[in-house]
Amino acid sequence: MGSTGVRIAIDAMGGDNAPGEIVAGALRAVEELGVKVLLVGSPQDIEPILPSSIKSEQVEIVPAEGTIAMDEEALSGIRRKPKASINVAMSLVKQGQADAVISAGHSGAAMAAALLRLGRLPGIDRPAIGAVFPTMVASKQVLILDVGANVDCRPQFLEQFAVLGSAYSQYVLGVTEPKVGLLNIGEEECKGNDAAIRAHQMISENPYIKFVGNAEGRDVLSGDFDVIVCDGFVGNVLLKFAEAVGEILLQIIREELPQGLRGQIGCSILKPNLKRLKQRIDHAEHGGGLLLGVNGICVIGHGSSQAPSIFNAIRLAKEAVDNQVLQRINSQNLSEKGVL
Amino acid sequence: MGSTGVRIAIDAMGGDNAPGEIVAGALRAVEELGVKVLLVGSPQDIEPILPSSIKSEQVEIVPAEGTIAMDEEALSGIRRKPKASINVAMSLVKQGQADAVISAGHSGAAMAAALLRLGRLPGIDRPAIGAVFPTMVASKQVLILDVGANVDCRPQFLEQFAVLGSAYSQYVLGVTEPKVGLLNIGEEECKGNDAAIRAHQMISENPYIKFVGNAEGRDVLSGDFDVIVCDGFVGNVLLKFAEAVGEILLQIIREELPQGLRGQIGCSILKPNLKRLKQRIDHAEHGGGLLLGVNGICVIGHGSSQAPSIFNAIRLAKEAVDNQVLQRINSQNLSEKGVL
Repeated sequence: MGSTGVRIAIDAMGGDNAPGEIVAGALRAVEELGVKVLLVGSPQDIEPILPSSIKSEQVEIVPAEGTIAMDEEALSGIRRKPKASINVAMSLVKQGQADAVISAGHSGAAMAAALLRLGRLPGIDRPAIGAVFPTMVASKQVLILDVGANVDCRPQFLEQFAVLGSAYSQYVLGVTEPKVGLLNIGEEECKGNDAAIRAHQMISENPYIKFVGNAEGRDVLSGDFDVIVCDGFVGNVLLKFAEAVGEILLQIIREELPQGLRGQIGCSILKPNLKRLKQRIDHAEHGGGLLLGVNGICVIGHGSSQAPSIFNAIRLAKEAVDNQVLQRINSQNLSEKGVL
Repeated sequence: MGSTGVRIAIDAMGGDNAPGEIVAGALRAVEELGVKVLLVGSPQDIEPILPSSIKSEQVEIVPAEGTIAMDEEALSGIRRKPKASINVAMSLVKQGQADAVISAGHSGAAMAAALLRLGRLPGIDRPAIGAVFPTMVASKQVLILDVGANVDCRPQFLEQFAVLGSAYSQYVLGVTEPKVGLLNIGEEECKGNDAAIRAHQMISENPYIKFVGNAEGRDVLSGDFDVIVCDGFVGNVLLKFAEAVGEILLQIIREELPQGLRGQIGCSILKPNLKRLKQRIDHAEHGGGLLLGVNGICVIGHGSSQAPSIFNAIRLAKEAVDNQVLQRINSQNLSEKGVL
């Protein structure tokens, strides 16, 4: 299954913990996943933290100058700084020198760079960031998009997300006929804001989408939906809340269970079960989301990403390359699906 | 502390499980909280489910005709059906025959009825539903508003929510100087949709609000904020997601911990600790939210409310009456706080 030849361009300067944690995650991916990483950024910042044993066929530094700051306006930053690390990393994919790109920097800037350099898939106005969540049903996952690329969404964007999400769910997650829901505040089609009401109608009338109706907050992890579409504002709040809740719960368990002598004894007996429990809850920690709808594989991580998240982001990118996500979505002829 | 004289008007016909679960919750509140309940609805539906031992000074049926259906447009329904249970219940408060009202029916209709019959507090354009969440810090709670009354919010509504929430946090939850956050998708003031960017500026310039900045999804339960404001769409998604997550996590614990012989033994030793754990996580189940900004005490429950939620909603309403929420917020002179 492994494709040892996969080449990942990494925005080594993007994110709160760049370049240290970014490089650390990348090196772990080289070792465990057999990928080649192209570390894009300032050589004088990256070189000193690379071990001398690193081989050039595994890790390469690609020079870039500057980054887009978190408080900078995305599009103007991308245009004003053509040599910024995110721009150089995107160009590597565009030029065929890398198979995928990863950034934990300014996510708006990453999207803008992807749009300008990689371009959109036919039929798609706006790309969306998709995140895969575990559900209550152990064998089922749910793809939520958008989790942060578009803070305001027109109804047709939500319809396009439904088409994109269905293709991804079918061809990458292996769901035969993905059930699509619209995130909303009630089950009835009249519920929600204007965009949600109009999107409900457009999605339900699109014959290429298996629309099963509105999904409320309580339905997100129910396993009843394979794909849930929403604007990037509510999706981002939900993603970050969900990730934090897992950690909070583990903390409550750590506080409450070992209390007292019985607690100490019980916990030591339960050690293997507690470990399994932790793994299931921790599953909420993703490496990042796939930017769906652009003509290239692009994973966007949280600004706060540390080495394990970067490693997971690289694994996600590698899986997308191995599964030929792009070719499969492209073969779907999205522009013929009545979206535009 | 108890005020045995508190009279609660209950929309007995509102919600998916009306009138059975609504009446069951109300009867428990009569017994355990010492309140008087006015069950508003169709006598022929309510009478048969009341035990014959009930005394008229504790429970009274107030006749009403019809309800606003979940798929009905709120305002026109409220206007077209003056005798609907939610309208009659609101009127009881307006006329001083009840101290508070509770509904698990159409939340938009409950808000419309409250606006038309009770009116708004001075300085408030739109009321908001506030929900209190537990945080990671055991002794701290966070008030989130709006969790469902307004699906689209202008920036000044969010500013008004910040003023309302601060007053509630200070005078009811006992927080000396409530720290207010704006729910958003990044820490920087330039992040978010147009409404969030403009609200950030307005809230930060209001001298009566102790604004500490944007709160991301991961910050909601951190304990760093006493009040978080957001539009009713994202707030409602978050509330329902948070409630479901608690249940899901308890299910995962029930599935994983008792597995195998060690699991059985360990769990039986840990029984008291597991019970405490469950209580802390279960705390996510509220009875409903307070409708803040209208001139009366009004608690809005989920449509799916069952008896325990109705009981909790009644307890919340009684606490609001006991704490004189309305008088205290009114004494704040909201209209002088630069909101309008």
